[in-house]
Amino acid sequence: MAEQRQALVSGTTRFIAILGDPVAQVLSPEVYNPRLAQAGADVLLIPLHVPASAFEAVMPGLLRVANLAGLIFTVPFKQRAMAFADRVLPSAQQIGTINTMRRDPGGGWTADMFDGAGLVRGLEQLDAAPRNRKVLLVGTGGAGRAIAVALARAGADALTLCDLDQDKARGLAGDVQRFYPDCVVTASGSVDAQGYDILINATPVGMAPNDGLPLPLRLRPEMVVFDIVPKPAVTPLLAEAARVGCRFGGGRLMIDCQADAVLEFLGFA
Amino acid sequence: MAEQRQALVSGTTRFIAILGDPVAQVLSPEVYNPRLAQAGADVLLIPLHVPASAFEAVMPGLLRVANLAGLIFTVPFKQRAMAFADRVLPSAQQIGTINTMRRDPGGGWTADMFDGAGLVRGLEQLDAAPRNRKVLLVGTGGAGRAIAVALARAGADALTLCDLDQDKARGLAGDVQRFYPDCVVTASGSVDAQGYDILINATPVGMAPNDGLPLPLRLRPEMVVFDIVPKPAVTPLLAEAARVGCRFGGGRLMIDCQADAVLEFLGFA
Repeated sequence: MAEQRQALVSGTTRFIAILGDPVAQVLSPEVYNPRLAQAGADVLLIPLHVPASAFEAVMPGLLRVANLAGLIFTVPFKQRAMAFADRVLPSAQQIGTINTMRRDPGGGWTADMFDGAGLVRGLEQLDAAPRNRKVLLVGTGGAGRAIAVALARAGADALTLCDLDQDKARGLAGDVQRFYPDCVVTASGSVDAQGYDILINATPVGMAPNDGLPLPLRLRPEMVVFDIVPKPAVTPLLAEAARVGCRFGGGRLMIDCQADAVLEFLGFA
Repeated sequence: MAEQRQALVSGTTRFIAILGDPVAQVLSPEVYNPRLAQAGADVLLIPLHVPASAFEAVMPGLLRVANLAGLIFTVPFKQRAMAFADRVLPSAQQIGTINTMRRDPGGGWTADMFDGAGLVRGLEQLDAAPRNRKVLLVGTGGAGRAIAVALARAGADALTLCDLDQDKARGLAGDVQRFYPDCVVTASGSVDAQGYDILINATPVGMAPNDGLPLPLRLRPEMVVFDIVPKPAVTPLLAEAARVGCRFGGGRLMIDCQADAVLEFLGFA
């Protein structure tokens, strides 16, 4: 172990920091560091526990640390971080949150949001790229919002947003429709899976031991089902998808795909 | 390599950061991380390249990062860092610089200076603890000052300070004498090694390929010779010490001993 650490960090090592409060639960070090090592980058992803109340005090100084190559943000900083970027890329502007910042050659910081990009890449890996598909998205919180924008941006034909909070679903539908006029975006209280090519759960339902399905619906075997819940690996929804014979993907696939996208953005892939 | 990084950093990992400008040359990651791993601490030492002009902007935020367990300072921050400590321990106050800060249980930060402590421990390892010894110290810059205070604090009987800049030597001699009345501290232009038990080089002389001795003197075999220059491992002074038959130690021993002292202070030894 000693020799390993010796090899891994030296005076020339650069860092990508993930900021959260709390941060102990993040999987990013385990997900990103093997990829960085494989890419031959002398770069290490480290978690920084920034108390929520200290975020605005920490950020300006952190951005001046010269061997910091990038920043990743998790709860509760995805919105507040945006104020520190010199440039915010279009989909992050549309979503209203960011999760990654990179240092530009000129010295400024560019921000983007990859929470939805990971899911789109996950669908591509399932041979179910969103282009020209009809998608039912359950859950329009932070993750749902990022995913909705990413799906529309990826060329989804139609997008139906479903949330217990119907006002929220309607608000998001209006936003996405405005950004992407070619995608038919609607909010619906309906729970009918008929007519959809892809079903996505972007709610936390499935995480708790006694959770059932995020909504009561009858899957069809030709559908592709994606559940962003990372643990358990097989949620009740994915178990049902498997039973019916659907192709399906889960939170871990999304995390892996998102890491690929983030590392491309940061220049390490 | 991938699996190694995976094992080394997780969401729960804490950090000790060494701040310098530049920082690429520091050996601390290689020196400290094997020790931390061996102690079973989920703690990693990382270099942070803080541009000299950004230090005061970086520090306040950095101190609020909750999983930062300690800070180490190298050039050019050892003096400026002191302003950020809530408590400065006595020898660091006497030296006027700090190299380490630890987070107190109460939340504040305590600072101390270990640049001299490493050398004193190195002497102990050579079975030449400074207590009751007469020491000739060449070089009264930043390192020399820290070493002079540490030697007097460790009970040296007499301390002669020698520097091309005689005013600097006299100033330091006066300071150390005032702090440690029981140690006979003098500044001297003399280069006679007679009467000294220990000779220490705290100048950079010996680093460059064509450097000779830091001062022209005739070693006696019963003397202990210490050279703080870390590279080359055997400086001209140490080569001469070996030829004469002196016990001797070099910069790498000092670095190792200092790491032990710093990690004790930080609570990881």
